[in-house]
Amino acid sequence: MSKGPVTRFKVEVLDGDRTSRREDVVVTEEPLELRLEWPGRPPEPLVVTMRTPGSDFELAAGFCLGEGFAVRPDAIQTVAYCTDVKLTREQQFNTVTVTFDGQPDREPPQRYGVTSAACGVCGQQSLDELADRDYAPVDPVEVPLDVVLRLPDLLRDAQPTFGRTGGLHAAGLFTATGDKVIVKEDVGRHNAVDKVVGWTVLNHHSRKGLVLVVSGRAGYEIIQKAAAAGLGMVVAVGAPSSLAVDLARQFGITLAGFTRGNRCVLYSTPTRILR
Amino acid sequence: MSKGPVTRFKVEVLDGDRTSRREDVVVTEEPLELRLEWPGRPPEPLVVTMRTPGSDFELAAGFCLGEGFAVRPDAIQTVAYCTDVKLTREQQFNTVTVTFDGQPDREPPQRYGVTSAACGVCGQQSLDELADRDYAPVDPVEVPLDVVLRLPDLLRDAQPTFGRTGGLHAAGLFTATGDKVIVKEDVGRHNAVDKVVGWTVLNHHSRKGLVLVVSGRAGYEIIQKAAAAGLGMVVAVGAPSSLAVDLARQFGITLAGFTRGNRCVLYSTPTRILR
Repeated sequence: MSKGPVTRFKVEVLDGDRTSRREDVVVTEEPLELRLEWPGRPPEPLVVTMRTPGSDFELAAGFCLGEGFAVRPDAIQTVAYCTDVKLTREQQFNTVTVTFDGQPDREPPQRYGVTSAACGVCGQQSLDELADRDYAPVDPVEVPLDVVLRLPDLLRDAQPTFGRTGGLHAAGLFTATGDKVIVKEDVGRHNAVDKVVGWTVLNHHSRKGLVLVVSGRAGYEIIQKAAAAGLGMVVAVGAPSSLAVDLARQFGITLAGFTRGNRCVLYSTPTRILR
Repeated sequence: MSKGPVTRFKVEVLDGDRTSRREDVVVTEEPLELRLEWPGRPPEPLVVTMRTPGSDFELAAGFCLGEGFAVRPDAIQTVAYCTDVKLTREQQFNTVTVTFDGQPDREPPQRYGVTSAACGVCGQQSLDELADRDYAPVDPVEVPLDVVLRLPDLLRDAQPTFGRTGGLHAAGLFTATGDKVIVKEDVGRHNAVDKVVGWTVLNHHSRKGLVLVVSGRAGYEIIQKAAAAGLGMVVAVGAPSSLAVDLARQFGITLAGFTRGNRCVLYSTPTRILR
């Protein structure tokens, strides 16, 4: 059985002088092994990521777009849980196989090993490769400032699990008028981004005119995934890192950080936020 | 030249109807390539991690302890920046070589590839290996509740950079009476843990009687690193994940989460917090 997005544990709560025992909900973190298969090659393990169960196929599809394996809209033929009889039932739900219609759009590197819930750039074998990846130009989406400032609230309103656990990152795609397209949660912020991007891949939904919103900080890997998906604007509730700013400037992605209340800080391509 | 912990960028701040241009400080995120060398083997690249420059040697030593390569206190002979003439000067400060006195205590797997600032478990090639690692029993440290509740403030007081960027994780080692031993910051929470643990390795400082305090959430990788370092208590300001709770229970590590004000939630081995 696949586990749900939260796991229950018996805990002790110490509050001032009082000790109480109760059941607590904790965000589920479980390994997901991704296997790739294409004509002439059996499914082979590529990477294990620590993720929150749910939207696993979207996660797999988004990962493959972000890593450059599935750039063409129809490159992915099927995504399925594993039916390897050597695996336990729980392991089967922690193993996803992506089957390509032919050769992947980029040759997958040798196996990546295990990546944590917070890891987003295990897809590259070297720093040179990080710099050398080619991306199509990003979508020059323009968004009114008042919409940008409302996006963090709209994202939070669409999060079902966060309030219960305090342990989840969210990512969402919204239109330039603030309409929600899709929101996903995960213990790893890069997984949440993979899930929303992967949702557009599996549903053949255009990413044109959309803004990526993330509930926390924007590290290098968030901007890299936005660039790979052609998204031209990233709105973060938290702080960016220096590499995130560098990369956003390199790709012409509008990057807003500290987006809270009436305020945000624009690190890159500010003119596409309309005042 | 090695970059500092913060990088300056010109930004636009939108606040209500006002737009101002100013210089902003952003936490530096830079790649660090770790190379391992031992008698009979030239230095070979193992992993690239996105980290905040500073305490790079501690980061390298802590990583090697966490991954099981340097379990014996004297396994590491030297840690040094690279002098490879083929590298630019900046690349030299982003490449650290750890030299062992003989064979590492565990055979390093094949090259890991690039890991992000938030990744902490790229050291394993498979999930089986995650479960199969042997650790010495952790230190059964006991800490009074009032000290536990003060630890987050003590950690924050020891953070020099956080207030300026809002983008850094901190990790610290404190005694059971709340005395600071060492505090480090990094854009990646697992890197901050590697840095404090690595500091004890390089300074031959005992970890007995110490508590690990982390400024954010406690994922799987934080508890794995605590277990590898023999630390018996982890105090987190944020939420734990389900795998973190599972692992803490498996190793008998006291795990406190949501440690804020007069309150904390105990997920594992609560009896070692003295009331």
